Amino acid sequence: MRIGILGTGNVGGRLGTKLVSLGHEVKMGSRTAQNPKAAEWAKANGAKASAGTFADAAKFGDVVFNCTAGSVSLEALKLAGAGNLGGKVLVDVANPLDYSKGMPPTLTLCNTDSLGEQIQRAFPSAKVVKALNTMGNEVMVNPGLLTGEHDTFVCGNDQQAKAEVVEILRSFGWKSPIDLGDITGARGLEMVLPIWLRLLGTLKTRNFNFKVVK
Amino acid sequence: MRIGILGTGNVGGRLGTKLVSLGHEVKMGSRTAQNPKAAEWAKANGAKASAGTFADAAKFGDVVFNCTAGSVSLEALKLAGAGNLGGKVLVDVANPLDYSKGMPPTLTLCNTDSLGEQIQRAFPSAKVVKALNTMGNEVMVNPGLLTGEHDTFVCGNDQQAKAEVVEILRSFGWKSPIDLGDITGARGLEMVLPIWLRLLGTLKTRNFNFKVVK
Repeated sequence: MRIGILGTGNVGGRLGTKLVSLGHEVKMGSRTAQNPKAAEWAKANGAKASAGTFADAAKFGDVVFNCTAGSVSLEALKLAGAGNLGGKVLVDVANPLDYSKGMPPTLTLCNTDSLGEQIQRAFPSAKVVKALNTMGNEVMVNPGLLTGEHDTFVCGNDQQAKAEVVEILRSFGWKSPIDLGDITGARGLEMVLPIWLRLLGTLKTRNFNFKVVK
Repeated sequence: MRIGILGTGNVGGRLGTKLVSLGHEVKMGSRTAQNPKAAEWAKANGAKASAGTFADAAKFGDVVFNCTAGSVSLEALKLAGAGNLGGKVLVDVANPLDYSKGMPPTLTLCNTDSLGEQIQRAFPSAKVVKALNTMGNEVMVNPGLLTGEHDTFVCGNDQQAKAEVVEILRSFGWKSPIDLGDITGARGLEMVLPIWLRLLGTLKTRNFNFKVVK
């Protein structure tokens, strides 16, 4: 599959590398075509990895991952271009974290709205699926890093798009992603961040995740 | 131990009954001394159970549980009386859910504040510990209801108060409550509610909880 990754941070890099290792062709997009982090990532990941602008990556991908910082995701997606995202599965991994008021970050929006919903409203012909935002990037691509079972979630308005994302998650090692319904489920998923950040401070490791126990 | 329960709903009733079964004396408080639900609960739970006003219950308890609806907790606690709460462990189990805009409920506050913090600010001499708000009342008092291990959390500004609450949680069957630090941790704990409510819809049971997997 051809996949566009928007964002050159740890999340984009880790997901891109995992997707290349699974045989996909991946283009990492950023604000400029000459972003050094994207170029370095492409060089390190071989012939199936490439770099370009947000628009290049969005155009390239059959599936596009939003791995930009949540506070600038809408702007980055505008640069990617509605035309390049239309009809495509857009996996929103971002969290709307606001670091401007110091640590710990708060959310730029929550409760009655979410970044996932904002993106879906701004790009109505994209098939937005919120996924993977409730854990560190190390765990995202390698659930086996932790001992025992734990969970990942998807939500979005398009069933087929969610099924495609679940297939990708399964290829990462996630056995049973939990479907939380339509894109308004992104509220709950993004509002997990405050307790995740608090646990990060308590557990002194990024390698943890939640399991839903019945 | 003498325990005051504020609130006559499912949470207050379930916690009160469990605490009586463990040998504590429990007074359930409500707006009026003659609340029929409180009277019925007291009658059903024998000699160690009694009912009264919010103030009666707060005065009675060495430890006081706030089990009122989050939207009216501050008002209920004012009726309980700062003098009756001063110096005591006040376990805040409430969630600031706003049902006024329909289902699912949103939170009346979150992100940069929490009900736990509001209560601590309003009653500075009470030792507020947020606990047990991230699960249904059936699981609160009976963690063995679910298969395998799962987690409960505490946060608050007073270490000794948290230790006392942890002791009570252990008596319910919780093996290792996780300490999330000071009362600002209540933000994360209360912001679990949206995903909890979403999972309630997905799983079609109240009998589930989160485990932190490392």
